[in-house]
Amino acid sequence: MRLPHSHPLDLEHGRIDLSHGAGGRAMAQLIEDLFARELGNEFLAQGDDGARLPACTGPLVMATDAHVVSPLFFPGGDIGCLSVHGTINDVAVMGAQPLYLAASFVLEEGLPLAGLARIVASMAAAARAAGVPVVTGDTKVVERGKADGVFITTTGVGVRLAGIDVSGANARPGDAVLVSGPLGDHGMAIMSVRENLAFDAPIVSDTAALHGLIADLLAAAPDVRVLRDPTRGGLAATLNEIAHQSGVGIVLDEAAIPVRPAVAAACELLGLDPLDIASEGRLIAICPAAGAERALAALRAHPLGTEAVRIGEVIADERRFVQMKTRFGGRRMVDWLAGDALPRIC
Amino acid sequence: MRLPHSHPLDLEHGRIDLSHGAGGRAMAQLIEDLFARELGNEFLAQGDDGARLPACTGPLVMATDAHVVSPLFFPGGDIGCLSVHGTINDVAVMGAQPLYLAASFVLEEGLPLAGLARIVASMAAAARAAGVPVVTGDTKVVERGKADGVFITTTGVGVRLAGIDVSGANARPGDAVLVSGPLGDHGMAIMSVRENLAFDAPIVSDTAALHGLIADLLAAAPDVRVLRDPTRGGLAATLNEIAHQSGVGIVLDEAAIPVRPAVAAACELLGLDPLDIASEGRLIAICPAAGAERALAALRAHPLGTEAVRIGEVIADERRFVQMKTRFGGRRMVDWLAGDALPRIC
Repeated sequence: MRLPHSHPLDLEHGRIDLSHGAGGRAMAQLIEDLFARELGNEFLAQGDDGARLPACTGPLVMATDAHVVSPLFFPGGDIGCLSVHGTINDVAVMGAQPLYLAASFVLEEGLPLAGLARIVASMAAAARAAGVPVVTGDTKVVERGKADGVFITTTGVGVRLAGIDVSGANARPGDAVLVSGPLGDHGMAIMSVRENLAFDAPIVSDTAALHGLIADLLAAAPDVRVLRDPTRGGLAATLNEIAHQSGVGIVLDEAAIPVRPAVAAACELLGLDPLDIASEGRLIAICPAAGAERALAALRAHPLGTEAVRIGEVIADERRFVQMKTRFGGRRMVDWLAGDALPRIC
Repeated sequence: MRLPHSHPLDLEHGRIDLSHGAGGRAMAQLIEDLFARELGNEFLAQGDDGARLPACTGPLVMATDAHVVSPLFFPGGDIGCLSVHGTINDVAVMGAQPLYLAASFVLEEGLPLAGLARIVASMAAAARAAGVPVVTGDTKVVERGKADGVFITTTGVGVRLAGIDVSGANARPGDAVLVSGPLGDHGMAIMSVRENLAFDAPIVSDTAALHGLIADLLAAAPDVRVLRDPTRGGLAATLNEIAHQSGVGIVLDEAAIPVRPAVAAACELLGLDPLDIASEGRLIAICPAAGAERALAALRAHPLGTEAVRIGEVIADERRFVQMKTRFGGRRMVDWLAGDALPRIC
């Protein structure tokens, strides 16, 4: 709605103040002049407390993610597109077609409107590219020093693909473990900015929406048993979760695990293990060994999976250990990250 | 999943640290020992990145709300139950049956686990009482001083009730404006804590889930045109929004507007207008005048609507003004709150 007597937001020099979260005219104007303008679609345009959506045919999937990444802008992306990709991926790895996103913003007083506008534009571009609209939202403002610029929670709803049954609990001994591309780019893109690491070629986040890649994979290999995106905690945490949920062991082949040289170098410099580092546009797929080549071919045929490889296998192991055959012929445990935090990667 | 080698959380003396958000063992344990234990249901127990839900019959509704209320605990509630009620109400006022909630937490390093446990228990109790489970969630941790204890975003999905068409755009000249009870209790409960106001009887938040009240109202009066909960910005902002969406004017009768004496006194002390103050368990309903008595009777028959009254009427007015007939026979404009912020009420 166009409000009477309202002045346009100063998107160049203006800043968020507490009135932008107070439910009055300033908030209505922020929604109209920034959020609705950028993200605009038929659902947001309803202007009510929520969105009226069509009926869905099929079982629903729902996923939510708070995004608190720091810095807000990083090589390859920003909190805006990341918040769209992250939740689309959480819905897609459930074997579902993502349909709608909701977005809630916690803004810190003093946040430059220019930065917020850049973030919202990035969200809008990511949502358009993915074909998944932001249908409803909410904005709150907290006092200076009570938040860190902007936090964004996105929640996704999707509908499960017929004939697909993927779950972290479905891995079976003998299955193959596949990954869609090099690991850790996102986490090390963030860390290299924070730590002021300079490389000849900067490490760029892999942030991407994986639902297209997953749809192609499942069309070619509907017998895929597990899909996950190795975000916080990286491959190590993701595979340990799967091992625990499925009651199996997993053995990785170190030589097969793809890590870009710059990521490996940055990890060595910072004393980090690439297996612990978050990706935001990579897919882990576990499938019956007999179908692994078909699944790999489907991944490689998609622009986001050209570097897909097989990195290990599922074994029977009551202890539910994730282990790695090292390049030197030994074996080591791949444990969860215990206390060492890589905070605010996503 | 029960993790090997994990120690139970110290819910009495422990505090949130950055590892609780890092995707590793500490985070898994926080989820298992606190969130899953309190909120536990068949969907959360799936343990995947999202929740697999049944199919829904009928058009969907989706709503999201970030909760940043300060203080976290207040007379009559806390951020936990408030975050459940707020989103249930946003779904319900769309004329929908709320079915599922997603919850995302941004936690500040150093937050006492005892306080978090109290908040999660309150959420769980509110969700159980409402019959709307929290089916999926997410937790992030930010450094000390980068948030304010805890922020909670809840997102709700529901299914629209057949034969109901409510929207902020549906008000028509001649319609009656009803409210389910006294206004401003929630906002003044918060403000009285913040401002250290002492009353003989403390002002208690009205926070409540309204979907039962709304279901009873719509069963008795399916011709209701607009439903809203007057949260941020209070009755003034809510009615101005409706006037703008519907292209009508609204005239209120000051003498009919219910405000508790303690709320009125606190507002006077703080220089606030009760019409600007948030409620979190009150309903505004606009319906054809012919059905107003039937609608009022339905509201009053429900425990949350015993004090329901008719407070005004919709008129034709191209300027879309909200006005009030004062006790003294005059008229005054009821404008949106412009710059004066009542921040962090919800």
